[in-house]
Amino acid sequence: MTKVLKSFARGRWFIPSGGLIDIPSAVDGKVVARASSLGLEFAALTRYARERGAAIRGMTFHERAALLKRLANHLSAHKDALYALSGETGATQHDSLIDVDGGIGTLFAYASRGRRELPDEKVVFEGVVESLSKTGSFVGAHMMSPLHGVAVHVNAFNFPCWGMLEKFAPAFLAGMPVITKPATATAYVAEALVEIIVDSGILPEGALQFVCGSTGDLLDHLTGQDVVAFTGSLETSEKLRNHPTVSRKAVRFVAERDSLNAAILGPDAGPGTPEFDLFVKEVVREMTVKAGQKCTAIRRLVVPSSIEGDVIEVLRSRLAKIKTGDPRSGERVMGPLASLDQRREVRAQIQRLRDEADIVAGDPGKAFESLDPAGAYMEPVLLRCRNPKSAVLVHEVEAFGPVATVIGYDSIADAVTLVEKGEGSLVASIHSYDTACVQELVSALAPYHGRLLLLDRDDAAESTGHGSPLPMLVHGGPGRAGGGEELGGLRGVFHYMQRTAIQASPERLSGLMRTWIKGAPAPVSIPHPFRLDFAEIATGQTVETESREITLADIEHFAEFTGDKFYAHMDEAAAKANPFFPGRVAHGYLVISFAAGLFVDPAPGPLLANSGLDTLRFLKPVSPGDSIRVRLTVKSKRPSRSPEYGEVRWDAEVFNQHGETVARYDLLTMSARPAPARKQTNPAK
Amino acid sequence: MTKVLKSFARGRWFIPSGGLIDIPSAVDGKVVARASSLGLEFAALTRYARERGAAIRGMTFHERAALLKRLANHLSAHKDALYALSGETGATQHDSLIDVDGGIGTLFAYASRGRRELPDEKVVFEGVVESLSKTGSFVGAHMMSPLHGVAVHVNAFNFPCWGMLEKFAPAFLAGMPVITKPATATAYVAEALVEIIVDSGILPEGALQFVCGSTGDLLDHLTGQDVVAFTGSLETSEKLRNHPTVSRKAVRFVAERDSLNAAILGPDAGPGTPEFDLFVKEVVREMTVKAGQKCTAIRRLVVPSSIEGDVIEVLRSRLAKIKTGDPRSGERVMGPLASLDQRREVRAQIQRLRDEADIVAGDPGKAFESLDPAGAYMEPVLLRCRNPKSAVLVHEVEAFGPVATVIGYDSIADAVTLVEKGEGSLVASIHSYDTACVQELVSALAPYHGRLLLLDRDDAAESTGHGSPLPMLVHGGPGRAGGGEELGGLRGVFHYMQRTAIQASPERLSGLMRTWIKGAPAPVSIPHPFRLDFAEIATGQTVETESREITLADIEHFAEFTGDKFYAHMDEAAAKANPFFPGRVAHGYLVISFAAGLFVDPAPGPLLANSGLDTLRFLKPVSPGDSIRVRLTVKSKRPSRSPEYGEVRWDAEVFNQHGETVARYDLLTMSARPAPARKQTNPAK
Repeated sequence: MTKVLKSFARGRWFIPSGGLIDIPSAVDGKVVARASSLGLEFAALTRYARERGAAIRGMTFHERAALLKRLANHLSAHKDALYALSGETGATQHDSLIDVDGGIGTLFAYASRGRRELPDEKVVFEGVVESLSKTGSFVGAHMMSPLHGVAVHVNAFNFPCWGMLEKFAPAFLAGMPVITKPATATAYVAEALVEIIVDSGILPEGALQFVCGSTGDLLDHLTGQDVVAFTGSLETSEKLRNHPTVSRKAVRFVAERDSLNAAILGPDAGPGTPEFDLFVKEVVREMTVKAGQKCTAIRRLVVPSSIEGDVIEVLRSRLAKIKTGDPRSGERVMGPLASLDQRREVRAQIQRLRDEADIVAGDPGKAFESLDPAGAYMEPVLLRCRNPKSAVLVHEVEAFGPVATVIGYDSIADAVTLVEKGEGSLVASIHSYDTACVQELVSALAPYHGRLLLLDRDDAAESTGHGSPLPMLVHGGPGRAGGGEELGGLRGVFHYMQRTAIQASPERLSGLMRTWIKGAPAPVSIPHPFRLDFAEIATGQTVETESREITLADIEHFAEFTGDKFYAHMDEAAAKANPFFPGRVAHGYLVISFAAGLFVDPAPGPLLANSGLDTLRFLKPVSPGDSIRVRLTVKSKRPSRSPEYGEVRWDAEVFNQHGETVARYDLLTMSARPAPARKQTNPAK
Repeated sequence: MTKVLKSFARGRWFIPSGGLIDIPSAVDGKVVARASSLGLEFAALTRYARERGAAIRGMTFHERAALLKRLANHLSAHKDALYALSGETGATQHDSLIDVDGGIGTLFAYASRGRRELPDEKVVFEGVVESLSKTGSFVGAHMMSPLHGVAVHVNAFNFPCWGMLEKFAPAFLAGMPVITKPATATAYVAEALVEIIVDSGILPEGALQFVCGSTGDLLDHLTGQDVVAFTGSLETSEKLRNHPTVSRKAVRFVAERDSLNAAILGPDAGPGTPEFDLFVKEVVREMTVKAGQKCTAIRRLVVPSSIEGDVIEVLRSRLAKIKTGDPRSGERVMGPLASLDQRREVRAQIQRLRDEADIVAGDPGKAFESLDPAGAYMEPVLLRCRNPKSAVLVHEVEAFGPVATVIGYDSIADAVTLVEKGEGSLVASIHSYDTACVQELVSALAPYHGRLLLLDRDDAAESTGHGSPLPMLVHGGPGRAGGGEELGGLRGVFHYMQRTAIQASPERLSGLMRTWIKGAPAPVSIPHPFRLDFAEIATGQTVETESREITLADIEHFAEFTGDKFYAHMDEAAAKANPFFPGRVAHGYLVISFAAGLFVDPAPGPLLANSGLDTLRFLKPVSPGDSIRVRLTVKSKRPSRSPEYGEVRWDAEVFNQHGETVARYDLLTMSARPAPARKQTNPAK
């Protein structure tokens, strides 16, 4: 009997009560599985997610990041099962790598970003503290906190693993439970993935629910604390976006729609140049990987009219070498499309394109005698636009398969106009080694794209390619591409959080931020806080040092010793002529070195090292005879990966004898954690 | 004859061809003006904006910021005309200050942010450069560039000036032309404002068009390069958001909808505490300023049940002292609502609220014998919710006038539940001096709000209040409040820009960013770049210094001289026990002081001063006997406000004798601009 796919709802597997739909294999048309969500109570799913949400938000970013890492490791160890199933979707081994390993890689990437770029807290403050008043008793800052609802993810058929994981990772890291819905056509791979995740027991209860089949009335139960993130066609995107509840309750909606991405060949990149070869290679790759069924695939080849013939000739010969075949064979082939329906659709779109373009390579109707006729095989098809100046369909009609159209241009301005006719894309690639050309194209095309790849002889060896979204860069695009953004490092995490401006007194805001800010209490600490270990150190603890005069002899001595004999320190007349100085002044380095001499506590203790210094500004010159003193206040703490120590950030302010600030900076130190860790770092004396 | 309001379209004033609607005065019902947009060709407006957009984008951020400042100054000099008209809308002098001066203040704020926080360029890069490859030949960064379309601003009736200017400032600073549409009820004030702007001649052609009356088929002509920003009711917001073109083309849509904002009185803040008094004062102010017609006004007073009676009693007596009157009288009064229609609507909503609440102060139907019966006057009305546990309407029904409802709570958790029932608000204020209470409320309520004001004895004197959006903080809120964001400093500017991930070689990306990045060429400059003035200095120019040994004697001498005798520099055994050090090491400050000695060019010249240092990290210890050398590369330049000099940022990398990096930082210097400025800074020697 054919496998019936299950949903995973409210912490248990759910078997549909009927309404099953057959899912045929892309390779031979045989039914691989059957799916339905009939009988699922969607209101209960959202309720369950909301109830469990509190526990997920109760973890810190670092705790969730650690779970993502464990999950990624677990999936790595169990991924073979996914490869095996992937073949049925038409994916070759290489396609599966993108889907499975790409997805796992995204988990690792977010685990690592979460650890490095987010605090070990439940909320994170973004940007600077804003002064809102004259004397500083009223300040503001922006706090990001996870929304209290559920993230609903609606994925496309082409990447059942990557699509699910690249959406899940940022949402979970943010602190939101997820309900994920795969495209039914490849839901059997997604189900297998969820099975591995559930079996691992790594995720907290409610973090992931899985709806196999229709989403029913799910959207009716959403609120302004929820998020819908969608990947797929324009039509479905509109349906979800304009759903009455989504609209009325202002449910956050992020769409990533298929677009007609362009690859532009620069006028300088004629045959014989490295960029020409790179262009050809990239186009062939994008047309054939995943049989061209990628939202980021190249659909429009915008090339100089003068060398259109050369481009077509080379592409024709390269495409002729692509073998269409059964991905399970282990041979190096291009696999079938996802289904016969999909192939019918692609052929229909090619037919529409032929109103404006001629086929110059490949036969969309080709029958493959050695392959199963029930498989959705087709040959790559290259078209050539007849009248680029007037053509419309080539910028609108997307054949979601191994299909692209060559469009000739006469000038760079002309190329820009053509690309803009796509009305917004996920990505475009620019193949040129001419600086002026690249700059012109980038500045004209950037507003129409979520990503631009500048491919040339310098970066080709390490380029990740036109079609690959990366976790650290935004994925999405304006207009036709849906206007949404995913990934992009923390930007993708923040889609699942609310930005709230907090207005308060410095003391209150400081408490919420767990960061000392100017105006908050700074009580002098006894003992010297350098004698406190990482656990004992608390925000606001302060050292007020003695003062020390800086003499002309000190300045001259420092100049001789360091070799820094800049005239502002050495020559009274010249220094006076300088707009910044009243005459000879102390070196900035001398000021901060003396400052350290004033605040350092020399004997071994929990303070291990000065690891750095941030935003040092010399605000007022220090003249010979001036005295300096330092106020050093614990600003914030950050645990390090090591159990032995953590990083402490200090606000350091150096004053002169008039109480004026002469320098201000953040000082970074490493402080030992409490024993036993401390013992080994604290030498017996 | 009554004034017919004009639109300003395609660079000229437009008189409607018919369809005029009467606009009555709020004060006496007399027709103040008539409005219509009949005859405007909206397709032509958008075409014109797009055509002129290129010139606006052709300016730099600093150039546009300077125009905003000029415009703000011009409006300041001409604002009296606006005050006079404002009275007809029901606004008192104080209300007009908020509207007119608040709007001008927002222009000043964005002018200043643009100058300080954006580069003097046409695009701005956001975030860090991401390494995308092993050897660093492929990198990425996010570029923000202005969208190529038009920003359509649809404003509310309550703040005809502020509403227009707070939307215009960030859009124009970003580089987008604006079409602004005021609410018809107060369009005569908006028209007067636009008249002053147009007469000033300050803005470039096409930067501002003004539609008085209906927007007709304007939205039909939008694309994915356009933005719609709306302030007003939920119903209109939905209509705009779900417009087929907005949806299909993914036109960027930002909504700020009226919400049922809460003020929460903490359990600690009983009668006699400063916070109780502050709460009362804030509530009375928010109920009566602008006759309560503010999207940020307090609608729900969430107070401890135990002191509900006290709260009501005090509020009743304070509200009784509020005099409703003619704003033009010059007396201290609360003005009328915007129109009789508006008053009818508010009375109807109060009637609905009475299903769940009793009126405890004020009479919604009160007739004012001494005032014009055609004026939309009403008294402030306070209600009390009968059954807070079960009430629904008090969280849903907004009476957009001087109306608020007291809702009692029993525990903080209970208060949280009540506030959440508003399903998202622009702002809430928390009135408490109890740290634990404030922290609990902030963490529970933040996801439901765009702004939280924590008001207490420490910040009250300088607080800007519950109802005031500020340019540097985000304004907007989730769910019921529309899910949009405005203002928030540069965040508000970025709504009008596209974020594009650029992937390229370091050299290429460096060229686009005008910032040197690691891996880009760093040719050694002859002469020493310290001898080049600000104009001559170019990104990538490099100094490679000689090397210098650091001896044990140097370290001991530095310790004696500065007083920094930290054991890691002085005690071999103790240093060895430290996890970071192999034994005694050089002070970090010694390393960077010697580094300066190596790269400084001592004689007077265009380099004027070292102004600071950023992101210094000590990456490897320097042991006695090690040698250091420095590579210093021009990273970026930034003009300062002074014509005499500009800021240069250098990438400084200190290496040891093995070529390992021991320290890396950004060095900031001031360099003189070319003569004549340079002459005066270069003393004759």
